[in-house]
Amino acid sequence: MDAEEFRRRGMEMVDYVANYLENIEQRPVYPDVEPGYLRSLIPTEAPLEPDNYDDIIKDVDRVIMPGVTHWHSPYFFAYFPAATSYPALLADMLCGAIGCIGFSWAASPACTELETVMLDWLGKMLNLPEHFIAGTHGHGGGVIQSTASEATLVTLLAARCKAVRRVQASNPEKSEAEILSKLVAYTSEQFCATLGTTASCAFDRITELGPICNKENIWMHIDAAYAGSAFICPEFRPLLNGIEFADSFNFNPHKWLLINFDCSTMWVKKREDLIGAFKMEPLYLKHENQESGKKRFRSLKMWFVFRMYGIQGLQAYIRKHVGLAKEFESLVRADKRFEICAEVIMGLVCFRLKGSNRLNELLLKRITKSREIHLVPCQLSGRFVLRFAICARTTDSRHIQQAWRHITQLTFEILQEPNH
Amino acid sequence: MDAEEFRRRGMEMVDYVANYLENIEQRPVYPDVEPGYLRSLIPTEAPLEPDNYDDIIKDVDRVIMPGVTHWHSPYFFAYFPAATSYPALLADMLCGAIGCIGFSWAASPACTELETVMLDWLGKMLNLPEHFIAGTHGHGGGVIQSTASEATLVTLLAARCKAVRRVQASNPEKSEAEILSKLVAYTSEQFCATLGTTASCAFDRITELGPICNKENIWMHIDAAYAGSAFICPEFRPLLNGIEFADSFNFNPHKWLLINFDCSTMWVKKREDLIGAFKMEPLYLKHENQESGKKRFRSLKMWFVFRMYGIQGLQAYIRKHVGLAKEFESLVRADKRFEICAEVIMGLVCFRLKGSNRLNELLLKRITKSREIHLVPCQLSGRFVLRFAICARTTDSRHIQQAWRHITQLTFEILQEPNH
Repeated sequence: MDAEEFRRRGMEMVDYVANYLENIEQRPVYPDVEPGYLRSLIPTEAPLEPDNYDDIIKDVDRVIMPGVTHWHSPYFFAYFPAATSYPALLADMLCGAIGCIGFSWAASPACTELETVMLDWLGKMLNLPEHFIAGTHGHGGGVIQSTASEATLVTLLAARCKAVRRVQASNPEKSEAEILSKLVAYTSEQFCATLGTTASCAFDRITELGPICNKENIWMHIDAAYAGSAFICPEFRPLLNGIEFADSFNFNPHKWLLINFDCSTMWVKKREDLIGAFKMEPLYLKHENQESGKKRFRSLKMWFVFRMYGIQGLQAYIRKHVGLAKEFESLVRADKRFEICAEVIMGLVCFRLKGSNRLNELLLKRITKSREIHLVPCQLSGRFVLRFAICARTTDSRHIQQAWRHITQLTFEILQEPNH
Repeated sequence: MDAEEFRRRGMEMVDYVANYLENIEQRPVYPDVEPGYLRSLIPTEAPLEPDNYDDIIKDVDRVIMPGVTHWHSPYFFAYFPAATSYPALLADMLCGAIGCIGFSWAASPACTELETVMLDWLGKMLNLPEHFIAGTHGHGGGVIQSTASEATLVTLLAARCKAVRRVQASNPEKSEAEILSKLVAYTSEQFCATLGTTASCAFDRITELGPICNKENIWMHIDAAYAGSAFICPEFRPLLNGIEFADSFNFNPHKWLLINFDCSTMWVKKREDLIGAFKMEPLYLKHENQESGKKRFRSLKMWFVFRMYGIQGLQAYIRKHVGLAKEFESLVRADKRFEICAEVIMGLVCFRLKGSNRLNELLLKRITKSREIHLVPCQLSGRFVLRFAICARTTDSRHIQQAWRHITQLTFEILQEPNH
């Protein structure tokens, strides 16, 4: 395929993508396939000679689409949102074309530098303390990771490295292994200090945890994977109070800030803590401006999205989703058969039928089977709870109303059954 | 931006990408910017209201492109290749549109299933032992990771988990901490058993290491990050002999198999070893067919590339690159001022001027400064060596000849200087 054919096929693909997203709500949100469905639909080996491109596209419809859970359907209310937007898709095309691997400044200066500045932009949107902003203070700064788990792992390694050095500074006779065997990480069931847990979007009190960590010289990491995006709105920013005690902080714009996966943003108070933990300099990577990490040009997505929406556009988007969650909450509260199981703060509503776990499991089973809307459950204090998360960019009031009609219809049917 | 505007902007972007790649060799391969160049070119904060899209594209040319190291220029010979191809770019557009997060089967069945089958296709292309092929044997199989480092980390955790369980099975009184403190990982300077090291593309003798690992019950992991792609050619496959002793194996199609970053493929002999190490089942992820890992729909890229090139097309691509390396090797060998520093097996030529490290450092400095070609060095037995890696998809004989003319011209100039 040469540039000329790519031009033609690329334009067809743009059209395919636009059609897919424009008409996505007409597809069943959850696929009707059994595990192993795909293997029998395609050959067992790669072709020796090239296939026809048109056949590949036909196979996307025949093989792939029937097995896709449509995360961007306005009837998708499962897990947490996976962000997407047209500006991010455009930026991703450019990112693919440049195709640099940004593991050092020299490997692609624009990639390293735009990332630092975009993390500053975003940090300022969240009104992070100055020491997290690279362009202001100079000691801290932000970096993109793939996932919140990766950010947490990186933080853990940096914290460990820093603790070892601190102990060694005053006890040079101690071996690294000896120190390591004494280190302790304090976590709850949800791991570290969390703003917006996955199960129910609960918030830890970091203004209480923070001073203890600082006093005891404990590295404090705060994970706000989902909820972090909302802190760009002044009315939600108080939930981030206490951030000034943190050594590091991360959240996922790829969840709720219209930037495609992967884009998990992380800030550290002292860049040197991160760089120190990962320093490794074979000559083929050596450069006076080396930093670590292997990455695509992911900051392009941030740049396109921030500029095409503007801060106000992004704020409006967050507020719309929270508003839709409140709308759903009202519908649930108005129906005496149901109860709300956790305070609705962001775009997640945890609810259940008053009654046994078995009854709620049955309701979810029927919802999943119907494939009209898609939800997943969680467990809160031993109770089986349904999670209704506002996810898609195009979800609107009518989808919420339709989803609730659907849930109550299935509830009605279940409660009619003799052995429910 | 609605679907209609995306159609228009998407087609413009396809055109931009095609133009960029078609004319890439006219750009200096290495950028002429100083660290920090970008910050002053853009605002210090995100705009409150949306910017104009045309301004963003103008800024790509004004702000981004001057700071890009052009990895896909045919004059880029640094590091190792970063794969790209038009079919992969098209697949990536589709991947972005579907935008699923495949952390379990239910989260997107097509994503999980195509990945397993594509890893089988690729495993068969490499003629991997049957126990690595999911569709044949049933106990082993492949999975996509982001990088070889990630694959190695995952393997290390799986191996550790397995070792702990084995010891605990016969010593139930031992605590996990006690066992962990006794575990040993054997590595060389390059970490694990490696086929094609980064510095010089050297090969470990796995037919010697393998039986020792098997006999001593040591998990054997083999990393063939760069060279692995070449094993689809029968003439290079003998370098993989001994793979039957390995518990796990990985290489990066995103380096040399025309599939965009990220796509690091990894196979394990026993899937349960991986799944067991990462099992963690909160209710919101629970599903009878759960596996682990958070991922984009990366297997689409593999599917498009394998089908659009066919196995023969991919083999021809590898052979072309190796041929170009041999061509460069001949040019170096024909010039008595130079020496070849490591056997040229794949697409990498390690060479240097006979003389001091200082002289070679000076030569590389001039090469980098000229920005006509881009190379990085390595250190072999204390000697400063230049690495010439065939990288871009469009690199051809004329680029090799031109690169050599350029190197010898700079050499001539240096050797003329009184204090060289």
